[in-house]
Amino acid sequence: MDPDLIDTLVVKNTSKIVFLIMDGLGGLPQAGTGKTELETARTPNLDALAARSVCGLLDPIGYGITPGSGPAHFALFGYDPVRNNVGRGILEGAGIDFPMTEKDLLIRLNFATVDRDGLISDRRAGRIDTETNRRICNKLQDNVHLNGAEVIFEPVKEHRALLVLRADRLREEIEETDPQKTGLPPIPPRALVPEAAETASLLLDLTAQAKKVLNDEPKANMMLLRGYARYRRFPSIAERFGLNPLAIASYPMYRGIARLLGMTVLTSTNTIEEEIAALKENYGAYDFFFVHVKPTDSRGEDGDFAAKVKVIEQVDALLPQVTGLDPEVLVVTSDHSTPAALASHSWHPVPVILAAKTCRPDRVERFGERDCICGGLGRMPTVHLMGLALAHAQRLLKFGA
Amino acid sequence: MDPDLIDTLVVKNTSKIVFLIMDGLGGLPQAGTGKTELETARTPNLDALAARSVCGLLDPIGYGITPGSGPAHFALFGYDPVRNNVGRGILEGAGIDFPMTEKDLLIRLNFATVDRDGLISDRRAGRIDTETNRRICNKLQDNVHLNGAEVIFEPVKEHRALLVLRADRLREEIEETDPQKTGLPPIPPRALVPEAAETASLLLDLTAQAKKVLNDEPKANMMLLRGYARYRRFPSIAERFGLNPLAIASYPMYRGIARLLGMTVLTSTNTIEEEIAALKENYGAYDFFFVHVKPTDSRGEDGDFAAKVKVIEQVDALLPQVTGLDPEVLVVTSDHSTPAALASHSWHPVPVILAAKTCRPDRVERFGERDCICGGLGRMPTVHLMGLALAHAQRLLKFGA
Repeated sequence: MDPDLIDTLVVKNTSKIVFLIMDGLGGLPQAGTGKTELETARTPNLDALAARSVCGLLDPIGYGITPGSGPAHFALFGYDPVRNNVGRGILEGAGIDFPMTEKDLLIRLNFATVDRDGLISDRRAGRIDTETNRRICNKLQDNVHLNGAEVIFEPVKEHRALLVLRADRLREEIEETDPQKTGLPPIPPRALVPEAAETASLLLDLTAQAKKVLNDEPKANMMLLRGYARYRRFPSIAERFGLNPLAIASYPMYRGIARLLGMTVLTSTNTIEEEIAALKENYGAYDFFFVHVKPTDSRGEDGDFAAKVKVIEQVDALLPQVTGLDPEVLVVTSDHSTPAALASHSWHPVPVILAAKTCRPDRVERFGERDCICGGLGRMPTVHLMGLALAHAQRLLKFGA
Repeated sequence: MDPDLIDTLVVKNTSKIVFLIMDGLGGLPQAGTGKTELETARTPNLDALAARSVCGLLDPIGYGITPGSGPAHFALFGYDPVRNNVGRGILEGAGIDFPMTEKDLLIRLNFATVDRDGLISDRRAGRIDTETNRRICNKLQDNVHLNGAEVIFEPVKEHRALLVLRADRLREEIEETDPQKTGLPPIPPRALVPEAAETASLLLDLTAQAKKVLNDEPKANMMLLRGYARYRRFPSIAERFGLNPLAIASYPMYRGIARLLGMTVLTSTNTIEEEIAALKENYGAYDFFFVHVKPTDSRGEDGDFAAKVKVIEQVDALLPQVTGLDPEVLVVTSDHSTPAALASHSWHPVPVILAAKTCRPDRVERFGERDCICGGLGRMPTVHLMGLALAHAQRLLKFGA
């Protein structure tokens, strides 16, 4: 089924839908116990919720595919993650709320250090602080000029910045200049298709100018370019589903994804507790809530099984504040798995709870990967979750006569 | 998800992947016990493997579709079985390692017996021996000539041969000439689309010439044509997945399928024991192994439940030699079901074991159709199995930023 079919069936009502997304929740068994992070965690509240809900396993993109955060979240919000795959540049731009236009080519810029022979000695320029980053971006902004395109340098954080080229007919099919290893020179920004030749020549000129401007910097004396992405506008969640959405996320990239889909974005939270408090404060003013919990993923990326278990237990302890709001639909799930055993994103499906007065509960009595295998949702692609949430909120019309 | 998405994510490493394919493994319950062939067999080794693996059920082509061996194996190797469906002629040609070219129309040829009235009395010409087949093919080769196409006759086995027409613009949309029943005359090779008229006229001429040449044969006095297939080249498993594959199969057709996908093909084995020995001998030199076990299917086709159970137990006894190699990914499954109760291929899904250090085990503790229903892979199309195997071998990059 084409996920866009639901767009044609949408009606509005006063129901509330909450998506509580525990980033990287899915895990792998620990040697010894044979239990995953979620199965190990003491989660009485999640278990009670699972017991009165319909559960299942979600495939973020497809069998065997390990998703980046962008496509994984697009799928959660009902946007086909393959058709709508966007480059890192757009996610960076959206993350710092850069006012993107249809003429923009957005590029993730990393400051790096090269030695006297022009070989990269540090791909992160010694992780310069954000203040230095800002100073260097200003210096580049004042001294780099292109014939044929407006150029914008925007600092992001530490060694990371956003480079924007603004002109007609820019293309994103350009080779990334980061060789991904130290001891090698930067790669020239070559055109990967003939139509990108003009853009490549602009970037070659820009790179040469930047090299001169940065020549006297002790650490950030080179820039590396990747994630080229032409801006494109997506139909918003309001347009597609008739929802008035609020994103509560403490990390910039997830705010960026939410902005791309037209969500209102809170920028005031830093902890999970603050996120849940913000949900309660803003509950009256919106009808769709994306609450993003980052530390499950971070501790998974660290390979720290025990710390990931603790984060899950922390969320469990806060859950009664969410269920206490009594939303018509409450979804608890994840964008992808980040097993501590792999210390990285993975392709394994993620467990999901869909709680609603209109749901048909199954026999799952505990929130865990193995329990959810036998859930009533079965194993399904994440992209269909939004349609199911709308259906359980009674926001979808009948299809056909 | 388009199965070809994985092609864009492939990276190489030193991991090994073994596909142990028990042809026609899936079964149906026996009256009395209510157990399938696999459920009846004593399989301690397969059960132990299932217990530490992720299991599931595979649909070879789709719900309700009974597959031929060609599409069923294409799906196992990650090739869309509908888009890549090939005629029997190509499988026959590949099976005898005939050097096919892009100009070839490949046709399965059966020698048959017709009576004095021109009606077919034996569709298999009394199963003439292969030596007679070779003599008759030589006779046809010497005496049949076409204006406009090269003609090649190649013996295969018993009454079966390969007919090749080589010319530009040949078409495969031709009516098969075997009426599938005795007591009827052969059907003329009519064009099924207007563009095939020229090919049909060549085949009509050829059929008439062959009839004269075969007139003095006591048994093989007629040829029947089916499985018309224009040759086309498929992207190889090396090109698509970066694997160096070895096929170990004792039956020519499965070798042919493997050759079509660019596998190196062993032709030295005749028994399952020899196949497993060959796997061990060649384990160092390849990284993907297709081990094909035919007798599960043959005994199913015979309708011999007990004999099929025995073959399964025979494979189980050999399994420790495979697991002893400790491949990064070991898949045990089948191309399709061949229940002894039906004595033919069927549409029922097939059980699958995927064993890997990176897999997330489920609660399946026994390898059987009913147990696998609750496996962590759920029920999935076979075509996605290869992507999952590559993921578990950590041979796929992350998708998207």
